Amino acid sequence: MHGGDHTGKLLDFSANVSPLGVPEGVRAAIAEAASGAARYPDPYCRRLRAAIAAADAVPPEFVLCGNGASDLIFRAALAGRPERALVPAPTFSEYEAALSLAGCGVSRYTLAPERGFRPGDDFLDALTPDMDMVFLCQPDNPTGVTVPKALLLRILRRCRDIHCRLILDECFLGFLDCPEHFTLQECLPDFPNLLILRAFTKLYGMAGARLGYALCSDAAFLSRMRRCGPPWSVSRLAQAAGVAALHERGYVDAVRRLVSRERPALYDALRALGLYVVPGEANFLLFQSPAPLDAPLQERGIFVRNCADFHGLDATWYRVAVRTGAENRRLTAALREVLEAWRNG
Amino acid sequence: MHGGDHTGKLLDFSANVSPLGVPEGVRAAIAEAASGAARYPDPYCRRLRAAIAAADAVPPEFVLCGNGASDLIFRAALAGRPERALVPAPTFSEYEAALSLAGCGVSRYTLAPERGFRPGDDFLDALTPDMDMVFLCQPDNPTGVTVPKALLLRILRRCRDIHCRLILDECFLGFLDCPEHFTLQECLPDFPNLLILRAFTKLYGMAGARLGYALCSDAAFLSRMRRCGPPWSVSRLAQAAGVAALHERGYVDAVRRLVSRERPALYDALRALGLYVVPGEANFLLFQSPAPLDAPLQERGIFVRNCADFHGLDATWYRVAVRTGAENRRLTAALREVLEAWRNG
Repeated sequence: MHGGDHTGKLLDFSANVSPLGVPEGVRAAIAEAASGAARYPDPYCRRLRAAIAAADAVPPEFVLCGNGASDLIFRAALAGRPERALVPAPTFSEYEAALSLAGCGVSRYTLAPERGFRPGDDFLDALTPDMDMVFLCQPDNPTGVTVPKALLLRILRRCRDIHCRLILDECFLGFLDCPEHFTLQECLPDFPNLLILRAFTKLYGMAGARLGYALCSDAAFLSRMRRCGPPWSVSRLAQAAGVAALHERGYVDAVRRLVSRERPALYDALRALGLYVVPGEANFLLFQSPAPLDAPLQERGIFVRNCADFHGLDATWYRVAVRTGAENRRLTAALREVLEAWRNG
Repeated sequence: MHGGDHTGKLLDFSANVSPLGVPEGVRAAIAEAASGAARYPDPYCRRLRAAIAAADAVPPEFVLCGNGASDLIFRAALAGRPERALVPAPTFSEYEAALSLAGCGVSRYTLAPERGFRPGDDFLDALTPDMDMVFLCQPDNPTGVTVPKALLLRILRRCRDIHCRLILDECFLGFLDCPEHFTLQECLPDFPNLLILRAFTKLYGMAGARLGYALCSDAAFLSRMRRCGPPWSVSRLAQAAGVAALHERGYVDAVRRLVSRERPALYDALRALGLYVVPGEANFLLFQSPAPLDAPLQERGIFVRNCADFHGLDATWYRVAVRTGAENRRLTAALREVLEAWRNG
């Protein structure tokens, strides 16, 4: 189960992607690339990697592209061949799916609601010497909560000391108000055990095209990841879309401004309905509802992400994307109806 | 190393795909789907699987779509968890790459040049009881040689008896003059150990969009394959392209007629140059050259597939796609020049 999987014409709050749709430049680039769809994609994504390297100010050798960040999660787990790994709970379920496929034993570090789902210093204690790989999501999905950078740096150093690879998923980093205060990108050259995941999916509104990338200074590990799956995992269409997306500075600014303005408004509106809302900092919010919401919201044309299948959560938790002001108001109006009906019924 | 990987403006004989480019209906479908690229793809490919099921006359439950057939090769190896597998040599290198990733020991069955690269009854002897998985390519890549159907059926039965999965790659089947005489599709319901691979890549000229599928009556195995990789491996663009491609009957007929006419002509022309040519039946031909061809052909604007990296072949073997008559004549004229220069030099 994941967000975004519904076949109807519902207003989709379940997928935490940009609410502004695909940027025009990206749409045009895909349409243009369609004419060349008979040719195999460049398996090394040379042009796209050069563009990413320039945009992120890293050497192109640090960049590996994938068929969405999820492709790279599986490749990292298969390439690392970890025997024991640590993942937080709740978090994106594909980390554990990939680790299990790689035959790895998984320990979970509980992000407790009563601590605001924020990891504490005891995360370092969980990094026992038998750990080969750690996944962390900055900010976390589905909570939207960040890991304080000072703690993240201590985690990274501890990982280095115990020869453990830190896979840091920064797919939602671009939605934070100050991403530069939360990234570990500057640590890449000195920490070959650090691999950062990023996606075009969310910030650039192109989940349907599938494109993500990994940043890492361990060239041998990236090379192993390349061999842990088919050589042409990134289509010509996705490569063209990615190059075009990196020119969409205006679009990204607009998405960021929108999310930065609407997140607090949606947070306040949900709290005003009497719901417990996690103070997330990304483009989605996690809240708990006393009433079941899926069916009654779908009757009202709205689809949300029930979090029953996240370790550490249950069916009382829901994740909603931050969308446009009008759409968010439609959500809160529908929620008010559903909650009132439930309280009266 | 694979065909189709060159960055220049060369006439590409290295990729064995349709020479007619992307069909107009497919191009238009991708361009239209680009507008919806912000939405996640359907992870179950429901619409595309229904269209494939109707086109191939199989139940939709038999169909699993992938990010190219190569994605499904890796998933089959990871889902099957084989300990020992048999692959022919020479054949498509990704079978062995996927099996190695899955930690499987690989035995090779040599397709000998002196037997026309055709497997014999001794293939059955190679199917020892310890075999868990067998890959076969019908017709084979890079030879273009078919496995006689009677032998293929005996192989399939033998595989069933020893509890071995047969992965039959039919990605080039559509280029044969009579594909229906060579497929094992009708065996699917009775042989859950049979998995057939097909691609849109080659016949529909859409290698750049990445789309393939598997056919199998073992629902549990397909379900395991689904979990052996990311859930959204087939992009919205590829799903739309696939649905559109299945309407392109005229295009497919034209490709088949072209290949059927030009393959013998190219075969004769290469033989007339004094080269040994394998009598392949697909949309490509394998031949042996006394002279090195890569550099001198590239100087003449032509890119061919050197087969040095195929087990069972060496740098004297080359694979060329069957392209249009004019393009094939350009290839043979360039080859004549290169061979004459080599003989005189």
